[in-house]
Amino acid sequence: MIPVRILGTASLQPGPAVTTEELCARVGRDATEVLRKTGIRSRHFAPPGTKAADVAAEALHGALVAAGLEAKALRRIFCVSSMGGDVTTPATANRVAAALGLSGSCDAMDLSNACMGFLSAFDLAARSVATGLGPVGVVSVELLSRTTTPDDPRPYLVLGDAAAAAVLGAGRPGEGVLGVALGNDGSLPTDVVLENPHATGKPERMRFLTPSKEMTRVALDALLRAARTVLEEAQVALRDVEWVLTHQPNGRMLEVVLDAMGVEAARGVRVVDTVGSVGSASLPTSLDRLWRTRPVKAGDRVLMVGVGAGVAHGAVLYRVGG
Amino acid sequence: MIPVRILGTASLQPGPAVTTEELCARVGRDATEVLRKTGIRSRHFAPPGTKAADVAAEALHGALVAAGLEAKALRRIFCVSSMGGDVTTPATANRVAAALGLSGSCDAMDLSNACMGFLSAFDLAARSVATGLGPVGVVSVELLSRTTTPDDPRPYLVLGDAAAAAVLGAGRPGEGVLGVALGNDGSLPTDVVLENPHATGKPERMRFLTPSKEMTRVALDALLRAARTVLEEAQVALRDVEWVLTHQPNGRMLEVVLDAMGVEAARGVRVVDTVGSVGSASLPTSLDRLWRTRPVKAGDRVLMVGVGAGVAHGAVLYRVGG
Repeated sequence: MIPVRILGTASLQPGPAVTTEELCARVGRDATEVLRKTGIRSRHFAPPGTKAADVAAEALHGALVAAGLEAKALRRIFCVSSMGGDVTTPATANRVAAALGLSGSCDAMDLSNACMGFLSAFDLAARSVATGLGPVGVVSVELLSRTTTPDDPRPYLVLGDAAAAAVLGAGRPGEGVLGVALGNDGSLPTDVVLENPHATGKPERMRFLTPSKEMTRVALDALLRAARTVLEEAQVALRDVEWVLTHQPNGRMLEVVLDAMGVEAARGVRVVDTVGSVGSASLPTSLDRLWRTRPVKAGDRVLMVGVGAGVAHGAVLYRVGG
Repeated sequence: MIPVRILGTASLQPGPAVTTEELCARVGRDATEVLRKTGIRSRHFAPPGTKAADVAAEALHGALVAAGLEAKALRRIFCVSSMGGDVTTPATANRVAAALGLSGSCDAMDLSNACMGFLSAFDLAARSVATGLGPVGVVSVELLSRTTTPDDPRPYLVLGDAAAAAVLGAGRPGEGVLGVALGNDGSLPTDVVLENPHATGKPERMRFLTPSKEMTRVALDALLRAARTVLEEAQVALRDVEWVLTHQPNGRMLEVVLDAMGVEAARGVRVVDTVGSVGSASLPTSLDRLWRTRPVKAGDRVLMVGVGAGVAHGAVLYRVGG
């Protein structure tokens, strides 16, 4: 076990909610059909000029408040994003730290691993805390509306803007990460690509490639294998896991994953219907919703699983402390 | 101490060497003056079409060979870059893993913290290994020539392309990281900026802002404070540290840092003269040069220090094992 405690969480969506009806009217698509296919009723688009660092800082501030900590208590900040934040160099995380009023009291860096970025950073934060460097703030921020246009409706109709954060600190006895299984498989064709304009020399947009059924099966298998691995490592049966959080790129994927695992909806936390597909911010948004609205109690196990572009996949099993 | 062993290192520069004379002829500058100011005689520009992932994989493969390990031994890969690698989503690290022949046997992610990115990832790799997840490969890859044009000679005349890697595994008794002091200060004005085109909607170039003398002093102070912190933590006097590796954005900065620390040149490893300013690849290039060409022996201490855009700054003190 990696001893660590989730001290506080927060999540937010910048800007106004935009309904699927509004977007469908713009691109000439049938809203009922899109809603049925995606399970997304609304998402938020940040107003022009919104800075990823400010949105991230607001989420991380919320997690600090929930933790009862001042920002200066942080020793490290991970800023996670699928679209690169505000700046490529220096790390956007510097601006998050500055927006929290910090000036050199902790380190800060940007991390990306598509939709699995939060779980990657969560694992690294846990290992930092366990080796004496904590508390650590992890914040995912996605302004994905910047990467879409109505000309390409598939991403435009599902992606949204969001930020979500968790602050991790020293674990109490029996509390922490019971198992981790994270993997990336770059040998598989990926289903989502955002090219780097610094490399291509031109503006780029998030593109959804159509995954084959074979690839969907491979991705789902990877997710299920990761879940099995952490449960075996922790010697916990899935039926005994109180809460199962899954990455939610759309409503159907959420259902497919829960079905494949045999987990009833009540153990999950649906967020995709009102936040949309928010990349690495999806899992921490559902973690925050779980922490704030469900009867989570000492000893509960939380399984976080997902699969994303890369192909990145994995699972983390966490045991709640007293 | 964080027990960890540097199992192997490697470094390379893709493409042909380009001399300062050649570049100065293109932009109408005096080569002698530029050489005197920068300490850079040549750097490498990767040919068009070069993929960051392939260059990174070649460097990491070299470090694996030096370590006597197969790629499939890796449990985690960090791909570090200041210019975002080949793709923003998914992580370029997936392609590095795939180029090494891996398909899901380890996880992989991208990390950025300007010129300090390698030290950030080195620390995270050490903490991963110390908590049971290793070996870990860290590779910095910078195709910075993609971010410059002759129209803006200051970055064009110093930045170069390079990759460098280290593989970290379980430490032997007395071996590992004796001290770490990493910090970021986003409240200071930064001296280097590469905006994110996904956020600005247009192509961007690496821009050098003129730092004030005050800022240079603040940055140098931060670096010296970090070095003092790790030395105090480890109860080691600087005069007893056998090797001092510094981030080398140019030859003068190398000298300023060594002078300020009172470290003679023989304890450093100069690489900037032939590789140029290579961002996060600078420190691991000098680490590789140290490992391959100097009489490093068991018990030696290696101090790695740097300061970069962000402002990111820090120091890691490592003790070599037997």
